[in-house]
Amino acid sequence: MKTRDRILDAALTLFNDQGEHKVSTNHMAAHLGMSPGNLYYHFKNKQDIIYDLFLQHEAQIEAALTLPEGTPADYNMTLEDKFAVMLGVFESLWHYRFLHLNLSQLLSNNPDLKARYRAFYQRCLFKLDGVYLGLNESGIITITPEQRKGLVTNTWINVTGWFAFLQSCVLEDGQSINKDMVEGGMYQVLQLESPYINAEYQADIEALKQTYQLAL
Amino acid sequence: MKTRDRILDAALTLFNDQGEHKVSTNHMAAHLGMSPGNLYYHFKNKQDIIYDLFLQHEAQIEAALTLPEGTPADYNMTLEDKFAVMLGVFESLWHYRFLHLNLSQLLSNNPDLKARYRAFYQRCLFKLDGVYLGLNESGIITITPEQRKGLVTNTWINVTGWFAFLQSCVLEDGQSINKDMVEGGMYQVLQLESPYINAEYQADIEALKQTYQLAL
Repeated sequence: MKTRDRILDAALTLFNDQGEHKVSTNHMAAHLGMSPGNLYYHFKNKQDIIYDLFLQHEAQIEAALTLPEGTPADYNMTLEDKFAVMLGVFESLWHYRFLHLNLSQLLSNNPDLKARYRAFYQRCLFKLDGVYLGLNESGIITITPEQRKGLVTNTWINVTGWFAFLQSCVLEDGQSINKDMVEGGMYQVLQLESPYINAEYQADIEALKQTYQLAL
Repeated sequence: MKTRDRILDAALTLFNDQGEHKVSTNHMAAHLGMSPGNLYYHFKNKQDIIYDLFLQHEAQIEAALTLPEGTPADYNMTLEDKFAVMLGVFESLWHYRFLHLNLSQLLSNNPDLKARYRAFYQRCLFKLDGVYLGLNESGIITITPEQRKGLVTNTWINVTGWFAFLQSCVLEDGQSINKDMVEGGMYQVLQLESPYINAEYQADIEALKQTYQLAL
C-alpha cells in the first residue's frame, strides 16, 4: 500500500476509535512508526487528511445512491435495489462514522470542506429523490411530489444524524457505537418509508423491520 | 435582574450569536462590564454556565411536551394542543439554539451534562409518545404502537437536528440561522406525521404546511 493510503487508513481508524479531536498528526505518525516529517510530506495538515477521507466517503455514498441504469425512467426498480441503496449508504456511514459524529465542528474548522459538503448534499438530495421517484414509478410506493420532497429531507436528517443520536441520547457511559447499530438506523428509515409502501410490498418491509428490530 | 441571571442571559446571547466554542468567560465578563472575578463568584467555569442554560431549556421543553390535563387518558386532545406542543418545542430550540448546533462536542466536554441529557431524552421520549397516543385516542391520527415508537424517534432526531442540518447543508457562507427557519422545521414535522392524520383533519394540516412552506 502506498504511504499516502497508509496514512489515510491509520487516520480513519484513529478518528473512528478515539474521536477526531483527540487525534493529532503526531499520534498518526507514531501509530504508523513514521516520522512527522514523512507524514507532512504527504499531507499539509490534519484538515487535509480529513478532507481526503471525506472524498472517499462522498464517492461511496454517491455510488450507493446511483441506480443500476442511471435514471428512474430507464429502469424498473426492485425492492432489492432499494435495500442495496440503504445498505450501501449505512455501510459508508459506519466506515467513516467520525465524520458525522461531530460534523458541525469539522465543517466550521474547514471552509473548503464546508463548501464541498454543501455541494455533496445537493447532489445526494437529487439522487435520493430519484430513488423515491423510481420506487413510485415501479409501483413499490405511492407518493406525491410534495411528500417525496419532505421524505427526502427527513430521511437525510435521520440517516446522517443516526450515529450522533445514538452517542448523545442512547449509549451508556463507556459504551461505544458498534456495527450492529447500523440496523437500528435502517429500521428507522423503513419506518419513515412505511406509510408510502404499497400493500403488496408491506409484508417484505415488515419482515425486514422485524429482523432489524432484533438488533436494537 | 440578579447578577447570576444577567450572566446567563449574556452567555446565551453570545453563544447563539458567535458559537459557544468562540466565547470565553472573559468575553462574557467584558460584554457585561464585569470583572472576571465577579463572574467566577457566580459560576466556577464556562461548563457550569452551559449546564445552567441547559436546565432552562430542559424545563421549557418538558413544559411544552406536557399536555393540559397531564395524561392522554384524562384529556381529549385537539389539533390546537398538538400545534402548541410543536410551537413550544421549536421556540425553545430557537432560544437555546447553540445547544443543538454542536451537541456532541458540548456533551463530550461535560460528563454531568451528558448524563443529564440522556435522562432528559428518556423523559422527552415518554412525553412525546404520550402526545401521539393522545392524538390517536382523540381520533386525530391512527397509528399502531410500533409506528408510534418509530415516529417518536424519527421526530426527535429531526427536531433536535434541524438547526444543525440547516447550518451544515443549507445555509450559504455568511448566512445565519434566523427565526423564520423554525417554520421549515415544523413543516418537516408535519410531513413526518401526515401519513397518520385522519381524513377529517388533513385539510387543517395541509393549510398549516402551506403557511410554513412559504418561509422555506
